[in-house]
Amino acid sequence: MEAYMSSIGSKLQMLTTSDHASVVSMNLFVALLCACIVIGHLLEESRWMNESIIALIIGLCTGVVILLISGGRSSHLLVFSEDLFFIYLLPPIIFNAGFQVKKKQFFRNFMTIMLFGAVGTLISCSIISLGAMQFFKKMDIGPLDIGDYLAIGAIFAATDSVCTLQILNQDETPLLYSLVFGEGVVNDATSVVLFNAIQNFDLTNINATIAWDFFRNFIYLFVASTLLGVLTGLISAYIIRKLYFGRHSTDREVALMMLMAYLSYMLAELFYLSGILTVFFCGIVMSHYTWHNVTESSRVTTKHAFATLSFVAETFIFLYVGMDALDIEKWRFVSDSPGTSVAVSSILLGLVMVGRAAFVFPLSFLSNLAKKSPNEKISFKQQFIIWWAGLMRGAVSMALAYNRFTSAGHTHLRANAIMITSTITIVLFSTVLFGLMTKPLIKILLPHPKHQSRSMTISSDPTTPKSFTVPLLGEAQDSLDDLGGQDIGRPSSIRALLTTPTHTVHRYWRKFDNAFMRPLFGGRGFVPFVPGSPTERNPQNQWQ
Amino acid sequence: MEAYMSSIGSKLQMLTTSDHASVVSMNLFVALLCACIVIGHLLEESRWMNESIIALIIGLCTGVVILLISGGRSSHLLVFSEDLFFIYLLPPIIFNAGFQVKKKQFFRNFMTIMLFGAVGTLISCSIISLGAMQFFKKMDIGPLDIGDYLAIGAIFAATDSVCTLQILNQDETPLLYSLVFGEGVVNDATSVVLFNAIQNFDLTNINATIAWDFFRNFIYLFVASTLLGVLTGLISAYIIRKLYFGRHSTDREVALMMLMAYLSYMLAELFYLSGILTVFFCGIVMSHYTWHNVTESSRVTTKHAFATLSFVAETFIFLYVGMDALDIEKWRFVSDSPGTSVAVSSILLGLVMVGRAAFVFPLSFLSNLAKKSPNEKISFKQQFIIWWAGLMRGAVSMALAYNRFTSAGHTHLRANAIMITSTITIVLFSTVLFGLMTKPLIKILLPHPKHQSRSMTISSDPTTPKSFTVPLLGEAQDSLDDLGGQDIGRPSSIRALLTTPTHTVHRYWRKFDNAFMRPLFGGRGFVPFVPGSPTERNPQNQWQ
Repeated sequence: MEAYMSSIGSKLQMLTTSDHASVVSMNLFVALLCACIVIGHLLEESRWMNESIIALIIGLCTGVVILLISGGRSSHLLVFSEDLFFIYLLPPIIFNAGFQVKKKQFFRNFMTIMLFGAVGTLISCSIISLGAMQFFKKMDIGPLDIGDYLAIGAIFAATDSVCTLQILNQDETPLLYSLVFGEGVVNDATSVVLFNAIQNFDLTNINATIAWDFFRNFIYLFVASTLLGVLTGLISAYIIRKLYFGRHSTDREVALMMLMAYLSYMLAELFYLSGILTVFFCGIVMSHYTWHNVTESSRVTTKHAFATLSFVAETFIFLYVGMDALDIEKWRFVSDSPGTSVAVSSILLGLVMVGRAAFVFPLSFLSNLAKKSPNEKISFKQQFIIWWAGLMRGAVSMALAYNRFTSAGHTHLRANAIMITSTITIVLFSTVLFGLMTKPLIKILLPHPKHQSRSMTISSDPTTPKSFTVPLLGEAQDSLDDLGGQDIGRPSSIRALLTTPTHTVHRYWRKFDNAFMRPLFGGRGFVPFVPGSPTERNPQNQWQ
Repeated sequence: MEAYMSSIGSKLQMLTTSDHASVVSMNLFVALLCACIVIGHLLEESRWMNESIIALIIGLCTGVVILLISGGRSSHLLVFSEDLFFIYLLPPIIFNAGFQVKKKQFFRNFMTIMLFGAVGTLISCSIISLGAMQFFKKMDIGPLDIGDYLAIGAIFAATDSVCTLQILNQDETPLLYSLVFGEGVVNDATSVVLFNAIQNFDLTNINATIAWDFFRNFIYLFVASTLLGVLTGLISAYIIRKLYFGRHSTDREVALMMLMAYLSYMLAELFYLSGILTVFFCGIVMSHYTWHNVTESSRVTTKHAFATLSFVAETFIFLYVGMDALDIEKWRFVSDSPGTSVAVSSILLGLVMVGRAAFVFPLSFLSNLAKKSPNEKISFKQQFIIWWAGLMRGAVSMALAYNRFTSAGHTHLRANAIMITSTITIVLFSTVLFGLMTKPLIKILLPHPKHQSRSMTISSDPTTPKSFTVPLLGEAQDSLDDLGGQDIGRPSSIRALLTTPTHTVHRYWRKFDNAFMRPLFGGRGFVPFVPGSPTERNPQNQWQ
């Protein structure tokens, strides 16, 4: 009894946390996040930097400092955990992307996006797998089986949609943004599905049946995930529209939207679907219906709260990847043969570039064939930027690599250690180098006459005003005029729309939306005026 | 190698989470949170219910369902964890309380609050400890040492500030709200300090030196925690004021405010201070300075986002406590002797009531002696409500009890199991029964002629409009007229203020604030007009 009590007493020096070391690391982490935000703001006008790169560099520097302080024993405070990444950090980022995406642009390019995201990822994965098999068999890196090679393909076929979001600008290059980002979301889903398939299927003998099963599995996942996201979004719209009629409570509305969005992601995980796709479509539906059913304060709050959560999660991920990169345990295996490691990384980087080129240019050509108007076609310069902007590898690759090649955060085999360090090298190299060069590259290739006034420059800030001016400006427009209400009239694209067959689909959708969906689920212009309802704009009551 | 790979393969059925059971429980939890919000909204007009009680009841029902499904083996999905509670759930609640509190009321009653929170908690703790010692020694509940008895005192002296926030209304009963809630915050801090002292000090021989050390420790903790909170708040105000001048970015501002607030809590934990006090004062400073330095969108977003986070955390806690209450392991020990358990719970509940009465009425008398104006005195009816509203025991008591009487979530000793089940019983009983009766009790004892119009009824909703109309209305007032800008002119209280000596302190503070603090850290009326700055109100650009 005495011993028992004293053991508790000694264990719990501090009541509130059982581990003081974790408090230290949390403090450091939160402080570094603040530093990233402040430095990111100071360097905002820079044409090279963006917040991802700053966070990555700060993370690396911190890693170095910790390595020096600990005398080379440890470099990271937190071990990179897939759970943390997939359960807490990724959902807000992808949800916010769906919530803020320009729906018209996204759906107009839907077929091209699917082509890039699904077929393209398969092509890229195959080329990387085959290439790795060819090259690595001749090198001395330890035993890798066919499953490992296919996993390598899936790991390096996963582009980094997070970094892309920070580099491309939705207002300046809407077509590129929607293509590259849309591809990124579908690509994430495809990579995860591919990776799971590789883990679960028996890969010793691949034949037509397995390929067909795989294809069916993918189609099922895609359709089911999308439907689940749409359904959850519609339920949230319905609940808020029906229950909150006439007596709105901002906090409950915001809480419900947040929780329902998260629920959609978790439900997808529950049913072994792609949470990324689900939460993305849930975001789209919520911004089209639910967002219009809530009070003005809720609209401002959700727009900014979701954007802020996403922004913090992005910064967190890059800081994390930067700090984890120098973990000494993984590099110990590699330090014996630095040449091999450099060779492996270079080969993989080359394969990533070739793999992406092998689908971007042919698929763009195919996509251009289907389009009649020259305005809709993807020019060669744009194809080049699409290729370039998708070369970055990020946290998804890291998470997949950790899942495949480590066991409980540790690497015991030489081949696995080399794969992990190569992944880290490629993530760092591609994010920093390609990331740094994307902004100038776009400026050179696509000179835009966009920066008219000071206020316009402010609102083309990559993080805020995209979520700030556009949807709220859009709201003042005529509600029946467009699909999503996020698009500010752009005559050339409307003309382009008229000449393409997607117009017909769009018109039918709009008819259906107006006749059936909006009366049921709300949406812009379909929430009738009652006192205290969101359509009432009483400045005295709402904001001074 | 083969075995190693296959073990990974079998371990990771699903890529995204290593444990499918945790996904199931997270889904259930998020869905239940949504249900609590919706049901809470539907029962909003009810004079008995509030969200805490609904969450508690839903949690209990879910516990019963799980118990039945699992065939009596398990009743909870997540084990109650102090870390989760103290690191993630409590900080947003207390920060939001500081952010939204009426600063004028709070500081006017500062001495009374300190008297209740510090001296009162000590009195209550002593009475409960001594009483428990007297009664339990005669009963057959197993070995308890002096440390255990003192811990019981600290555990049951911790009132539930979360539940109080939901039951009392800041607009209807401002004096009671500020007294009971202020007491709650100081009480939380006192209880935690007391509890830590009991865990760490050598209690076999208590003498004057140890008592003096204890007193010094408490004063140091209180002053240092407060200063840390104020300092972090001021730094956030300064950073946002200096850096963001002229080019504001809502997402960065919101992220920075959130992270700095959390950093203040974690820093307090790092230095072994009271995070609750720190984050509370950080919230007060942030709402006085930082909040006025940001854009209009950031103001709306922070107000509602903080309130929403706090609201979700509160609901989460009560759901959690409700679900955890039926954990079969703890009740197994008790089921042999239900009589003893009921007796222990009843004795403790009686001691809680006596312990609270023993300081509320004498200290109110003392406090009334110091006040000249009859408006400022606490009437007997108000004293009774203060006594009543502080009887609820909540998550802090649970967390402390778990810390003392369990080891890694398990209870192996009979005495410990009885203490845990008694704590659960008292938390459930006091929250549900006392909570249910508080609203009607206030209506009977203090009939208020407050409900003038429909819009007023809406804005006296317990969760939202407190954070919604008041600060934003307050902002339209003359900026130099009051301390915090949260108080809408109430002639009687201003008259009361004029006749009391606190007026002098208040006037000096305001002079200091205007001459030195506000020019440096911003604040209402002290942010000069520049294009793009928060004082610019361009409806086209900001909203709609």
